[in-house]
Amino acid sequence: MIPLYLGIDGGGTKTEVLCLSETGETVGTGLSGPTNLTSTNTGAASFSLKEAVRQALEKASPDSQVVSAVMGLAGMDTQSEYEMAFQPFAEMLKTAFKIENFHLVHDSVIALENGSNNPNAVVLISGTGSICVGRNDQGDSARSGGMDYLLTDQGSGYDIGRHVLREAIKSFDGRRPKTMLEQLVCQHFEIENLENIKMQIYHPPLSKVEVAELAKVCCEAYLANDSAARQILEWAQTEMIKLVEAVVHRLGLEHKPTDLVLSGSIIQLEFMRLPVIARLQAQFSALTPVVPDRPSMYGAAQLAKRLTLEAKR
Amino acid sequence: MIPLYLGIDGGGTKTEVLCLSETGETVGTGLSGPTNLTSTNTGAASFSLKEAVRQALEKASPDSQVVSAVMGLAGMDTQSEYEMAFQPFAEMLKTAFKIENFHLVHDSVIALENGSNNPNAVVLISGTGSICVGRNDQGDSARSGGMDYLLTDQGSGYDIGRHVLREAIKSFDGRRPKTMLEQLVCQHFEIENLENIKMQIYHPPLSKVEVAELAKVCCEAYLANDSAARQILEWAQTEMIKLVEAVVHRLGLEHKPTDLVLSGSIIQLEFMRLPVIARLQAQFSALTPVVPDRPSMYGAAQLAKRLTLEAKR
Repeated sequence: MIPLYLGIDGGGTKTEVLCLSETGETVGTGLSGPTNLTSTNTGAASFSLKEAVRQALEKASPDSQVVSAVMGLAGMDTQSEYEMAFQPFAEMLKTAFKIENFHLVHDSVIALENGSNNPNAVVLISGTGSICVGRNDQGDSARSGGMDYLLTDQGSGYDIGRHVLREAIKSFDGRRPKTMLEQLVCQHFEIENLENIKMQIYHPPLSKVEVAELAKVCCEAYLANDSAARQILEWAQTEMIKLVEAVVHRLGLEHKPTDLVLSGSIIQLEFMRLPVIARLQAQFSALTPVVPDRPSMYGAAQLAKRLTLEAKR
Repeated sequence: MIPLYLGIDGGGTKTEVLCLSETGETVGTGLSGPTNLTSTNTGAASFSLKEAVRQALEKASPDSQVVSAVMGLAGMDTQSEYEMAFQPFAEMLKTAFKIENFHLVHDSVIALENGSNNPNAVVLISGTGSICVGRNDQGDSARSGGMDYLLTDQGSGYDIGRHVLREAIKSFDGRRPKTMLEQLVCQHFEIENLENIKMQIYHPPLSKVEVAELAKVCCEAYLANDSAARQILEWAQTEMIKLVEAVVHRLGLEHKPTDLVLSGSIIQLEFMRLPVIARLQAQFSALTPVVPDRPSMYGAAQLAKRLTLEAKR
């Protein structure tokens, strides 16, 4: 029997799966729709997961077997959210692919694993949502943010997008000086002016992903020197810094060599990443920024392999 | 036939109806659930409206007849929102109560009518949502805000409540100094700490009204001298002022005697109203604040009567 390891990165937009061999070679990859249960229901999520795993195993030899699978799932913060996802996913993987060994973890865990082996490590994720998670060599862990759009998500694509909408309307109704965002939002929704934008926004209400897509509009305006866009992005940087500061302080990592893994579409933009790193290093000089060169599903597959090796010891 | 006039104030939480006689005496009042179609569906809204009107007409003499009804409806900003509400409401009122003459207007219109007869008048509403609407003696009108939670609603109960949640979490995860809001939010949701608050917030997601209710928590913390609460409320005051400034400038009312009608649960709090008035009067000395002493349904009934008299001329 040829052993295989499966890494799964489940999100609110898409699910990515990587199958690795014992020697670390890619056997296959899979891509499907959302498996985050705040974005979709259990049935649809199981279906997406099944399809992505099927793709990843398509070219595997018939006498191979997945000995361990790790899934990192976004938006899974409480015990009940864990249970809601674990049961159906574990069952489906067992039935469809004979996978007995399934581990479900918060998506920040695989992002951290993907970027660092250092016992002192912090990961800042800013994509649709935002979160910071860290660990130290005492075995402690801490997190900040990561509780979705009503409670947190400062410095995320969603929050940038929501600010874009609100500053565009302020420009339209005279509550602030004109900003380019007004015209760019009209273009984005293909409308003439903001008079009737309510239909586009609320019928049905924009999803979190659709709001987060407006971060692109903000970047476009920023690169064209729009001051409202610059304010929004600088504010987002400050909020990302607060996320990291809180975790660094709680783990006592102020002066210890620590990896800072940066993950997610927003923080990976150079004009967001560089000022955030500079401002954090000015405070915490032992912080080493890491931008993973592979997607998080590699971290998940790596973790699947490591957990198997550790279990054998 | 004894003529009656009906005033209806329809909102996202409740619907209030007032029946007035020709001489301005109250014939009856009615109270029921929401009729705002962003909070409920057309069937439930029609049912609520019917029940509130039935209550208001219960004690009317058998030989009386409603000659005109005016309904102010919150959240009705576009032509399609108007049509979606007008058709079923007009039909129900005709079938159930033989009311032929039904006028549907934005809720700010009845709030303005309730507070001012001045041709130069501005109304600032801050309740669950926020909006400013004004008119001038040239026949122009203008508005700012009033496009619901994703696009506007700065300075509203919803926005204050959302800030309360976010500052409470920041206090919990170490992104800001401790604020009393953390403990008060726990009390509000009857939980021990904020670790597992996600269940209360997202399953199902809090409604706009439920978020706005957290403004009470903010006021409680403010009155106990909490600095986070003070920041949130001062920010809300600044945003209310921006709403009014935009309308005053667009209508050229900077130096003209103008009524400023203040309506809604948030701006009616003395510690919110007084600083907003003081800061606006420092800029626009001809502004006269008006706090209506009767609910907006009086403005609606008054308007119903005025429209009938004007039609007879």
